[in-house]
Amino acid sequence: MTNNNDQPIPSFTEIPPVRCAELLATHSVGRVAWNTPDGPQILPVSYAVHDKNIVFRTSPYGVLSQLIQRSPVAFEIDQLDPETHTGWSIQVQGQAEAVQEPAELVHLWTLDDPRPWAPGIRNVFISITARIISGRAISA
Amino acid sequence: MTNNNDQPIPSFTEIPPVRCAELLATHSVGRVAWNTPDGPQILPVSYAVHDKNIVFRTSPYGVLSQLIQRSPVAFEIDQLDPETHTGWSIQVQGQAEAVQEPAELVHLWTLDDPRPWAPGIRNVFISITARIISGRAISA
Repeated sequence: MTNNNDQPIPSFTEIPPVRCAELLATHSVGRVAWNTPDGPQILPVSYAVHDKNIVFRTSPYGVLSQLIQRSPVAFEIDQLDPETHTGWSIQVQGQAEAVQEPAELVHLWTLDDPRPWAPGIRNVFISITARIISGRAISA
Repeated sequence: MTNNNDQPIPSFTEIPPVRCAELLATHSVGRVAWNTPDGPQILPVSYAVHDKNIVFRTSPYGVLSQLIQRSPVAFEIDQLDPETHTGWSIQVQGQAEAVQEPAELVHLWTLDDPRPWAPGIRNVFISITARIISGRAISA
């Protein structure tokens, strides 16, 4: 489709769930949002996908430790180009909570993935179970 | 600081508020998070900073139109490099609501900034008033 200047008109398209899962599996940085008594918060995290869950590590003392208790969250990854006005984003809506199961913790420690970027004790693994995964692309 | 392998150890540093404001003013894509009856949501938006507020446009029919009514939100921009494990992020916590004041709407329409990436009627300007601006950098 073109406009009067014969420039392509960008448009949104839905990204199918299978492709959303592929994009989640091949990226390693996203943003988690959750609600707090002071309103919503967003923080970036490095993550990995294990058994379809988004897993990231945090400190028991930092702000993300609020997600040790089961909490509704949204998680997002994207790749957006402000020059061309094109790109895509994926949103995962679900529940976060700390991994407690010993066998699962052994598995995660053995994989050593995700590795935290910063030093300090980040021995809490938070796992997000997806309820809804959606994605959209905007292309020229 | 180095570790046993003489590799630099990355560390988090706080970004001063003045620098946070500069980074917000020189970028144009961020992510807004808010709470819904179904849990938190995050969506990317193209934005501009006007009078210290984050302003983006949306359709009266899309999911972001939930923010026409005054709502607590978080807004985030970042630049993160998964290869080097370095980068920065800025978070704005505050209140979103639709711009209603005619003089302000005339001003925003005159500036024509931000321009939406996709076609369609996006004649609602949402403005986020910051309560807290915080940023952190992680560098080698």
